[in-house]
Order: sequence, then structure tokens, then C-alpha cells
Amino acid sequence: MHPTCLKISYDGTAYGGFQIQKNAPTIQGELERALAVIYKVPLRVIGAGRTDAGVHARGQVVHYTAPFKIPEERLPAALNVLLPQDIVVLRAALVAPAFHACFSATKKLYSYTLDRALYPQVLLRRFTHHLPGVFDTAAVKKAAESLKGTHDFQAFRAAGSSARSTVRTLYRVDLDEVPGRRLLIFTFEGSGFLYRMVRMLTGSLLRVGRGRLEPQAIAAALRGVRPDAAGPTAPPQGLCLEKVTYSEDPF
Amino acid sequence: MHPTCLKISYDGTAYGGFQIQKNAPTIQGELERALAVIYKVPLRVIGAGRTDAGVHARGQVVHYTAPFKIPEERLPAALNVLLPQDIVVLRAALVAPAFHACFSATKKLYSYTLDRALYPQVLLRRFTHHLPGVFDTAAVKKAAESLKGTHDFQAFRAAGSSARSTVRTLYRVDLDEVPGRRLLIFTFEGSGFLYRMVRMLTGSLLRVGRGRLEPQAIAAALRGVRPDAAGPTAPPQGLCLEKVTYSEDPF
Repeated sequence: MHPTCLKISYDGTAYGGFQIQKNAPTIQGELERALAVIYKVPLRVIGAGRTDAGVHARGQVVHYTAPFKIPEERLPAALNVLLPQDIVVLRAALVAPAFHACFSATKKLYSYTLDRALYPQVLLRRFTHHLPGVFDTAAVKKAAESLKGTHDFQAFRAAGSSARSTVRTLYRVDLDEVPGRRLLIFTFEGSGFLYRMVRMLTGSLLRVGRGRLEPQAIAAALRGVRPDAAGPTAPPQGLCLEKVTYSEDPF
Repeated sequence: MHPTCLKISYDGTAYGGFQIQKNAPTIQGELERALAVIYKVPLRVIGAGRTDAGVHARGQVVHYTAPFKIPEERLPAALNVLLPQDIVVLRAALVAPAFHACFSATKKLYSYTLDRALYPQVLLRRFTHHLPGVFDTAAVKKAAESLKGTHDFQAFRAAGSSARSTVRTLYRVDLDEVPGRRLLIFTFEGSGFLYRMVRMLTGSLLRVGRGRLEPQAIAAALRGVRPDAAGPTAPPQGLCLEKVTYSEDPF
């Protein structure tokens, strides 16, 4: 048995999300289909993050147990010819049997991109949330600061979450302007994220930016005294899983 | 009568090109459909550049003659709610009756974007031509230099061109690296372009980059002695009409 992990990127627009389901094409489903062609047996793929419908990835990591060895350097090209054009395998590596794409991860990094132009920048439409008008970046940065550190993020978890503990640590919550491109990008790096947590955090921060929520309300939501300050869930297409970090880089 | 011009942007992926045709949706067709809703009469739209199927625009300009006046500042939003999501009106302006989106233009600027990553950057797939591997940018820049100025571009014109003169002036032919993004961008600015000229110029320059054509062959093609050096036509999705310039900016 050959435990293998892949670094993959995808345009999530056409998919019902990462996790396999009956009624929509999924990233996991497409990967398992391509792997079954190569290995001639059905294989189960486990992802580091179960991205939702419409969410993208530049650095998702998955693992599976291969029945025989294929040189790692050949796997990306072999899989890419079998995968749809909007899913690309970037790297492959053999890993220790104990490696788990999700549980072995020490950090995950997501970006959320806002299109700040008056009318949508149409070539970025599939990968941004269009939000023109008033936006108080100073207030948002202040609110973002209060999210850093170890907190109980229970208020920022959507129904359907199965996590036992709702305590997570955020290492980075940044907001950066892309010079000359009318984009604002949030960066969230944390020990892990609850179901829809990044999009709910973004939803709260966008309310702060629009002047509809005071920056202090976000810290209050973390303390459990302002549950109304959490969310709404920001639209999926602005979100991208950028990077998954392991104590030892498998690639 | 109110001669009006619009600055528009579009993702050309889903369209048969700018110019109206029977068997595919077109940019012109969608614009005329939206304008007919607003003005209650059929109107003819004229574009500055007749971009091909799959080619994009960030700064296409079109004009039409409106039967009554609608305040320019309201037109973009009114049209955008009627247009498909991949076509966006950015600006509108009233123009002099003599204004013609194409014939009044003094310069046009196109970009052509190459994805230089080993495997396709999937979020850029619709807007780039993926070209990994050997690429001699110094040779390409040398060849590009020979294209600048006024030349007979007859060799770089596809069948179907109806232009009387094939003499055009190129003001800029640049190749720039986008730091940290593994992109190479060609910029072509000229007095005008023949049918498929930008993509044929790009096709020749890519052969130079791959070491399959010597840089001097491009100047020879312009002199008419190396017609084999012109083209092939590079794929459409890398091309974008960025800007149309008029002696007086209508916007």
C-alpha cells in the first residue's frame, strides 16, 4: 500500500463542493473517477478542507492509499489528462501511513477577494464578491485584530458542523489592497476552521466595513454576548483555499 | 437623435465573438437586445474592434444612435441589469454625430497573456494561454522590437480580412513579466489591426520564444520574403482588448 498525497487547484464554480454527493459533480468525485482509471480500483480520497459549492482552491491537499506505486513526478500529468479542465493536480508525494490530509494539517490559509470597482470587473467575476460603495477599511482592520488568537468560534459556525470543539486559533486575519486593481483581499490563517466559519467571519467583517456593525461587536460575538453579530455567510465565489501547512511539508 | 457611446468589458468565453451571427450568442447581439428593451426600438451597435470568439475585452467601445435621451450616468446600471453577467457596461457618454467607435479611434491596445506555470493556473484558465517550458524572452523582445513602426502587415492577416490597406503602425510591442504570478503579458498598441493580426503576431513571437523561429524572420515576414514566419494564430482566450483611444476622450 502506498499512501499518497496530492496538491490540487480548482475553479469551484461548476461543482457542488469538494465532498462527494448525489446530485452534483464534486471535486472529490472527479478525483476518485480519475484515480480509478489509473489504478483500476475504486479509491477513497480525503481532503484537507471540505470546500463548499462555488468555493475555489489554489492549494488544496488530498490523500489516498494507492494499491501500487506510480512515480510521483508522473502522477500530476497522468491525472490532469483525465480530470476536467477546471481541476488541476500540481504536485504528488508519497507520505507516511499516518499522514491524513485534514488531521495532520497544522494550519490552513484562505483568501476572500472583494471586487471594489463600481461595476463588476467581469474577468474576475467568478472569483470575487462584488462590493462597491462605502467601505471603512480601518474599522474592518480593527475588528479583524480582535479575531486573532485562540477563541471559541461557536457563533461563527453554520448548522451542519460536526466538530466536537469549537475552539480554534487564528494566526492571521489581514485585509490588503491590491494596488491599481481595485481588489481587497482578506487572508485568514488558522489552526482549523468550523463549517462556513471563514464566510461567516467575512460576512461580519463586511457589515463592519459598510458601517452596519460596530467593530467591537465581533469580539462580543466571540464572548457569546452578541450572537447577532456573527454572519451572514458571505457568497462562496470570493473564497479560495490557498494553502495547507503540515509540520513536515510532504512536497 | 442622440449618438451615444459605451465603454464595455466582457468575458468572451461563451460568445461567438463581438459581431452578430446566426448560430451563436454574440456581444453585439446581447447589447442590441438590452438596448431594444430600454429604447423600445431595434438599434444597431457598432464596435471599435470586432473581437473573435473567445476573445475578451476590458475596454471595448461601441456606439449607437439613441431615439431619445437617457442621462449618461444612469445608462450603465440600466443596461447591466438587462445584460448577461459576463458583459458589463462601464461608462456611457453622448458623442458628436460624426463619432464612429471604430473609424474615429486613433489607437487600440490589446494584451495577450501567457500562463508560464508548469500546470495550468486553473483560476486564470479562461483568460490565459498555457505555455510552460522553454521560452527565450530576450529573443522575443528582439523580434518584438522589429515589429514597431509603420509596416505592411499583409503576412499577418487571416483570410476573411476586408481591409483595403494592410499598412498599420505599431507603437508598442512589449513583453512583461508579472512578478510572482508566473504570467507573461504581451502588449500591442497600434493605429489599427487587421483581421487576427494580434493573434498571428503572437503566434510568430511564441515560435521565436520556443526557439523554433529566429528573431530576424519576423522582420523578413514584414518585408514579404518569409511568409512562412507569420503565425500560426495563437488561441483566443489569451487575448483581451484593453483600450481604445480617440483624439478626444468621449468619457
